[in-house]
Amino acid sequence: MIEKEVKIVVEQPPINQLKELLDRDLKFLNIEHQEDIYFNFIYRNFKMSDEAVRIRINDKGIELTYKGPKFNSSLKAREEITISVNDLDKTIHFLDRLGFYPVITIKKTRINYLDDSFLISLDLVDNLGQFIEIEAIHEIEDEKIHTYVNDFIRKYKIRGKLTTKSYLELLIEKNEKNSSSNSNTY
Amino acid sequence: MIEKEVKIVVEQPPINQLKELLDRDLKFLNIEHQEDIYFNFIYRNFKMSDEAVRIRINDKGIELTYKGPKFNSSLKAREEITISVNDLDKTIHFLDRLGFYPVITIKKTRINYLDDSFLISLDLVDNLGQFIEIEAIHEIEDEKIHTYVNDFIRKYKIRGKLTTKSYLELLIEKNEKNSSSNSNTY
Repeated sequence: MIEKEVKIVVEQPPINQLKELLDRDLKFLNIEHQEDIYFNFIYRNFKMSDEAVRIRINDKGIELTYKGPKFNSSLKAREEITISVNDLDKTIHFLDRLGFYPVITIKKTRINYLDDSFLISLDLVDNLGQFIEIEAIHEIEDEKIHTYVNDFIRKYKIRGKLTTKSYLELLIEKNEKNSSSNSNTY
Repeated sequence: MIEKEVKIVVEQPPINQLKELLDRDLKFLNIEHQEDIYFNFIYRNFKMSDEAVRIRINDKGIELTYKGPKFNSSLKAREEITISVNDLDKTIHFLDRLGFYPVITIKKTRINYLDDSFLISLDLVDNLGQFIEIEAIHEIEDEKIHTYVNDFIRKYKIRGKLTTKSYLELLIEKNEKNSSSNSNTY
């Protein structure tokens, strides 16, 4: 399936305030606690190929996902293939034997809302910050997603910026920045 | 987990006759209908590396298995890692994106019996023939497995031969033989 989404790095308002507004306006779905283990591949550098293999552990179970390269610059649109698996350790071993190795684990709390054709997720990502992801749940033209996002940003007076980067990319960037600023102090 | 097993290519007695004897002597477990799709890997030729990736569809569900190289010549002993997955098509797509492609599908009917520490499987493999697999269900010395197998062969007057080859290897061998004998008739 092709996933199309927009990610907003939220500076203002604070997430609690935003949560109150969304609780009032939208259909609350659920709160998820997600732990995502991202893997790289000895045969193909996923950072270069813009792919990802991820194990997600959440309240519902364990999922194994392949994400293809992003193929649209204005939206974060990419192929996603997700299968449910029954055993975390065995899945990690299975991947290990075939050349996949874990690179980073990302933990987040995700609060999900539904607004007609859009899934709105308020994400609190450990060591990274607060974000909103807006995802079309059906096939939809990019233009309509942009219109919805612009209205959303105006309505809730959000200050921040859009990004097409994944949490994996943002966290790796942040870690690299920290380690280079650390080395500057030497 | 390390799987240790012995496979017998059964020539005599006919499988129905053998089934009657085992029904009498052993604890019948179940009959399984298994469809196994074997994959090769663009980055590592599994025929050379003696590995396998397999999707098994049976009455219980769908399993994804990695089999490591055999590391014992007298027994068929190898690492096996199996996870349960929820969706056949998505699992095939997931594998495809990472460089795995299907090479052969093997269908068999497997009749399982338990005899203390051993799992006895009577296998009827489509386009290949009839086999017995004897597998230790706990850690056990190779010697004890051999003793058990020899006693088993004597007791049931089995004519045939032992093999450490997998059904995948046997079927590929047979297909290669057929295609070369076919070409001889040209």
